[in-house]
Amino acid sequence: MSSNPTCAIVVIGNEILSGNTKDDNIFYIASKLKTIGINLLEVRVIPDKKGIICDTIIALKDKYDYIFTTGGIGVTHDDITIDAVSTALNKPLELHLEAFNIFKSYYQKKGINTVPAADMKMVYLPKDAKIITPEAMPGFYIENIFVMAGSPYIMHKMFEGVIPLLKHGKQLISKSIETILTETVLAKDFEELQNKYPAIEMGSYPFIKDEKSLTSLILTSSDINALEIAYNELKEIINNLQKKY
Amino acid sequence: MSSNPTCAIVVIGNEILSGNTKDDNIFYIASKLKTIGINLLEVRVIPDKKGIICDTIIALKDKYDYIFTTGGIGVTHDDITIDAVSTALNKPLELHLEAFNIFKSYYQKKGINTVPAADMKMVYLPKDAKIITPEAMPGFYIENIFVMAGSPYIMHKMFEGVIPLLKHGKQLISKSIETILTETVLAKDFEELQNKYPAIEMGSYPFIKDEKSLTSLILTSSDINALEIAYNELKEIINNLQKKY
Repeated sequence: MSSNPTCAIVVIGNEILSGNTKDDNIFYIASKLKTIGINLLEVRVIPDKKGIICDTIIALKDKYDYIFTTGGIGVTHDDITIDAVSTALNKPLELHLEAFNIFKSYYQKKGINTVPAADMKMVYLPKDAKIITPEAMPGFYIENIFVMAGSPYIMHKMFEGVIPLLKHGKQLISKSIETILTETVLAKDFEELQNKYPAIEMGSYPFIKDEKSLTSLILTSSDINALEIAYNELKEIINNLQKKY
Repeated sequence: MSSNPTCAIVVIGNEILSGNTKDDNIFYIASKLKTIGINLLEVRVIPDKKGIICDTIIALKDKYDYIFTTGGIGVTHDDITIDAVSTALNKPLELHLEAFNIFKSYYQKKGINTVPAADMKMVYLPKDAKIITPEAMPGFYIENIFVMAGSPYIMHKMFEGVIPLLKHGKQLISKSIETILTETVLAKDFEELQNKYPAIEMGSYPFIKDEKSLTSLILTSSDINALEIAYNELKEIINNLQKKY
């Protein structure tokens, strides 16, 4: 797992912090990253404030291989991510010809021969920025930062375009067991199993389903063989404990 | 809005970062905080790693009035939040008598006269920690840090106990309008409205519903009168634009 590329997600969204909107992007990106072997090590949700966006990008960009941002790249006054990325990287905003042409032909197809003034905000990108894919404008990337929309439907399209641009690692695979045994009963044997297989990430998560208390045990690794062995041992541990309790 | 208490959420959870589990706690806490007038300014999702949990708590605890953590307070080896909080605050773990008695009577009711060894992990709390509520063990708080479970059902119970312990501010109220108008069409007038009412937070969020592109405009404020006035102006703006486009 440790040789996989690493990354962080920065969710730029007053709407999430204010409890108006439930974020769906973190789970979407995290589950995609898992399949391409990129380890997500941190997520931050921050307000649409230029200074905070800048500080966050500066704090994270050298710490991880990739940074994915969502939100704040539309044309209204609350969309300030592009400006913040420009400032954080000290890359001035410039008219991006490819971006402009994408907008131009989009409007031409509708019989409109100019790009509306409001949309011009989305064609000024930080110097050296590259378009992720013409189908998912105005998503772009610069250095190791991938700047995407907050709207899930649009973000998904953008992230599909991002995937081929990333260095992939070894896919992480998880196997899980749900049991009626409590953590109290499981703790000792589960810790011994973890100590036996330190390279496998092992987590225990109590939860309630149909008013019953259950525990979900999840093993995660990029080594499918080691995972199978540890998983079978875990099943045996649970069988033995179930006989006792 | 600015005089309200401020806070951050720290989600401690490999299961979220690895894409195995979809977080529900952020939205739950954010929407509750809104009703009691506490402004959520930041969320971090971090791994179950002691050093990272410590660093995050130290980085955030002086920045906000309250810190809410979720996850990592069970009895299995992957539960290290209590230990990390102890180290971060330099408050050694001590047998917490009240916590111990809660566990003791829980087991006594089941006819068991000792607290299982595994559970003793949850009754050693950082010096000066206080129990949130006996019904929601082992949730606790110390200084401005509220330490809660990751399992949503259990966390909800804990947070119900946390609410009366917090200084409440002015409730934030949101009013939103969905329109078929695009951000491109709305941007100019919406910005003018924002400039007219700078104390009202105004956000625009494009989204897709039933394959139609829509825009959701959200106004948020603790001043209900100002909110009503701005909201009515926004409705008029949209009506006028709809006649034009």
